[in-house]
Amino acid sequence: MGDFINPNNNLVIMAGGVGSRFWPMSTTDYPKQFIDVFGTGRTFIQMTYDRFKGVVSPDNVWVVTSEKYADIVSEQLPDIPKGNILLEPCRRNTAPCIAYVSWRIKAKNPKANLVITPADHLVTDVVEFQRVIKSALGFTSETDAIVTLGMTPTRPETGYGYIQADLQEASLSNKEIFRVDSFKEKPDLATAKEYVKKKEFYWNSGIFIWNVSTIVNALRIYEPGISRIFENLLPVYGTDKEQEMINKNFPLCESISIDYAVMEKAEEIFVFPANFGWSDVGTWGSLHTIAPVDKNGNNIIGNNVRLYETSNCVVHTTEEKRVVVQGLDGYIVAEKGDTLLICKLEEEQRIKEFSAE
Amino acid sequence: MGDFINPNNNLVIMAGGVGSRFWPMSTTDYPKQFIDVFGTGRTFIQMTYDRFKGVVSPDNVWVVTSEKYADIVSEQLPDIPKGNILLEPCRRNTAPCIAYVSWRIKAKNPKANLVITPADHLVTDVVEFQRVIKSALGFTSETDAIVTLGMTPTRPETGYGYIQADLQEASLSNKEIFRVDSFKEKPDLATAKEYVKKKEFYWNSGIFIWNVSTIVNALRIYEPGISRIFENLLPVYGTDKEQEMINKNFPLCESISIDYAVMEKAEEIFVFPANFGWSDVGTWGSLHTIAPVDKNGNNIIGNNVRLYETSNCVVHTTEEKRVVVQGLDGYIVAEKGDTLLICKLEEEQRIKEFSAE
Repeated sequence: MGDFINPNNNLVIMAGGVGSRFWPMSTTDYPKQFIDVFGTGRTFIQMTYDRFKGVVSPDNVWVVTSEKYADIVSEQLPDIPKGNILLEPCRRNTAPCIAYVSWRIKAKNPKANLVITPADHLVTDVVEFQRVIKSALGFTSETDAIVTLGMTPTRPETGYGYIQADLQEASLSNKEIFRVDSFKEKPDLATAKEYVKKKEFYWNSGIFIWNVSTIVNALRIYEPGISRIFENLLPVYGTDKEQEMINKNFPLCESISIDYAVMEKAEEIFVFPANFGWSDVGTWGSLHTIAPVDKNGNNIIGNNVRLYETSNCVVHTTEEKRVVVQGLDGYIVAEKGDTLLICKLEEEQRIKEFSAE
Repeated sequence: MGDFINPNNNLVIMAGGVGSRFWPMSTTDYPKQFIDVFGTGRTFIQMTYDRFKGVVSPDNVWVVTSEKYADIVSEQLPDIPKGNILLEPCRRNTAPCIAYVSWRIKAKNPKANLVITPADHLVTDVVEFQRVIKSALGFTSETDAIVTLGMTPTRPETGYGYIQADLQEASLSNKEIFRVDSFKEKPDLATAKEYVKKKEFYWNSGIFIWNVSTIVNALRIYEPGISRIFENLLPVYGTDKEQEMINKNFPLCESISIDYAVMEKAEEIFVFPANFGWSDVGTWGSLHTIAPVDKNGNNIIGNNVRLYETSNCVVHTTEEKRVVVQGLDGYIVAEKGDTLLICKLEEEQRIKEFSAE
């Protein structure tokens, strides 16, 4: 039975982001999830897809993205049906995105069991990842639980939200899964340090597992406005009219995250603490932390990069650019197309400022 | 008579260099003399040509360059006759270059009076420059003197050769022109400081003035081998055979500079001390010294360059590149085509190393 894939398993890849903290590598025309950051030949969204091989069949992989990225997604994920690429006419945060795809999937298979994941994260231990995902899918196939994956923190990261687990309250049917006590916004450093010291805090990975009835019911309760919009579109899902009606109605949705809309309100919220080498690779600094470095601590992407007296830098070019860097310590040198950025790694939170037109 | 141009006046622009210290802006495919370094719309060779307007008629402007730059020269100097662009099949330093063009000009006009200049220098006071050039040409039209222009040093520059004048020995016919005592190689800093303190040392600009008989005779005496080659070609100058015969014979010339071949040996050598805002713009540092800087000492060429907390840098891109630099002090950031260089200004003498394939 090793090759058996549960036909109810569905994967939803949310790929509408613009990765603005990764400028200039990531641009609104070609954001981070579609880029081969590590120079391995696979982009983030392709790596995301790859790590579900054997767990979800390609026919059950869904991508929600912006209209402008439709062609990139088809090109990068040629094995998934074109009809599974759902296009948002505008950005409305994660709750409307998840509502749309949930109603869409429910129309096709009311017994669907879903994993929702961002398109642009990194997982290094895919074997453990698959074990966790399968275990969680098993759990949600039998319960009405909303499950989030909580990452064991390895440092007092202030760039992530945290999930506080109630470690006394393991689920009866899966001893690895616990009730959530509370969700915590991105903390300051002191608070983050406290979280790391205590055992019950986990990074919020933004990866969710639930069956489709559970999320649809939760949205009906907590976001009746959004729910009504997608409920009304039931007759058109999978038809020629779908995109046109979505274009008309999607913009009417409130812009709200799934965390605010559902997670922080619902009752049956669980966390699955896990440790599979996860990073959201949200910043140049995080890339520097996880990517291979040379003996001077430089992370280099590019086919023709030469460094002299240079250390602790991220040097990143996606082209056949010849780059010579001498005498830099702790800088980002990032070049893409018509843009070049040189800035201190410690100043990378200002990249939005730098990239503003 | 303000518009009278002496028809014997000829200008020779030596444009065969590769400007390796200005990499990556200057490349062997498109070296420094053909680049609009200051973003003014005129390249070095064009500025060189421009500053002789009214002194030498376009028909008497000659360019000696490499075969591979023939088209660039025609394009950048459309007003000079194509036949005046002399093409060296290989590099043999300045003596063969000057010998070739001198025999070539002499075949056309034995009374020619020449200014020889590199293609890639900067002169800021063109009015004074023209006064000096006209005065020197007047002098060499009546004497067999070899005149060099000596620049009043403004700093103990170790990148230039120096000319020691005998200030007791002004020429009788032109009180601004002195006999040369000796030529000095590029000095070390201590020696350069001494030179600047004394009054009789001048930078060797590499600009020479002489009549064509004088230089031809001097070459016959000091470089009989080279001279014989160009003497033998007298029947073909200006004919269809010229390039073919040059291609055959030019490579036979000894590779030697005009300074070694003639200047340091001949008797009637004079220096015309002058001060017209000259720089050979031989390095990024010299560009930084002479080009306009912003209030933080940054010299910026590029249409879309933004600097944050950056000072004393040269940021140079010849393209419509968007460049953001944060947190650099005293660096070169130079980008051209498929190459990007970032290095400390104080390390620029290593650019040849950096640019090696």
